[in-house]
Amino acid sequence: MQEFTLDERLRRDSALITALGLSELRLMRDGRWPWLLLVPQRPDVSEMFELAPLDQTMLTFEINEVARALKEATGADKINIAAIGNMVRQLHVHVVARFEGDANWPGPIWGHGTAEPLDEDEMTALAHRITEAMARS
Amino acid sequence: MQEFTLDERLRRDSALITALGLSELRLMRDGRWPWLLLVPQRPDVSEMFELAPLDQTMLTFEINEVARALKEATGADKINIAAIGNMVRQLHVHVVARFEGDANWPGPIWGHGTAEPLDEDEMTALAHRITEAMARS
Repeated sequence: MQEFTLDERLRRDSALITALGLSELRLMRDGRWPWLLLVPQRPDVSEMFELAPLDQTMLTFEINEVARALKEATGADKINIAAIGNMVRQLHVHVVARFEGDANWPGPIWGHGTAEPLDEDEMTALAHRITEAMARS
Repeated sequence: MQEFTLDERLRRDSALITALGLSELRLMRDGRWPWLLLVPQRPDVSEMFELAPLDQTMLTFEINEVARALKEATGADKINIAAIGNMVRQLHVHVVARFEGDANWPGPIWGHGTAEPLDEDEMTALAHRITEAMARS
């Protein structure tokens, strides 16, 4: 049985916040937007519909929990959720806090410009606010 | 009790294929990509996590059924799924068939250029292939 191994590019571009029941919850190293990733810990899956039915339901639950917590933790105007994967085929779901007037608003974040640095203290503080908001729900 | 009314911009930019258990399944009037929308028929919802829990599960089921059928009907290299809603706040989920080398590949479709016309015969044929693929699953 094959094991799940996180894609190298996802690993480099993001930091682990915590492992949920199905997915790794990760924070992207980009200061332009509070930007989370959920990566289901299953090998060889690139489309959501390739997950087992129970995993599909789990992923939905995790997406919605994380989206709600991200909105609460940041006061975002809108949460953007997407499974794209044109470049990195390992299934990963973006959950992004958007604010009117932020970088590329109201356009999408994907493929826009280049990442701005986010220092370790800022990343730790944001991750903490998100896990606190998840614990409250 | 308030009724669901489809957002005017979504109505103008897309055509109804069929009503599923929860969502309207619609085809975007844009010839650049086979591009579907799922619009849950619930009033006053802009984030997925605002849906009732059973509706969240229904929506997941519908997204995955439609995504699988779209891949089968088109032979797409990758399905892109997103709930963005920065411009139109009524909850709607994009399910898009992407091909290596298509318009803006591997970038996202949202906010890229302007729609190319798709005539009624092409729309009908595509809608038919998708509903046939859904019936087979």
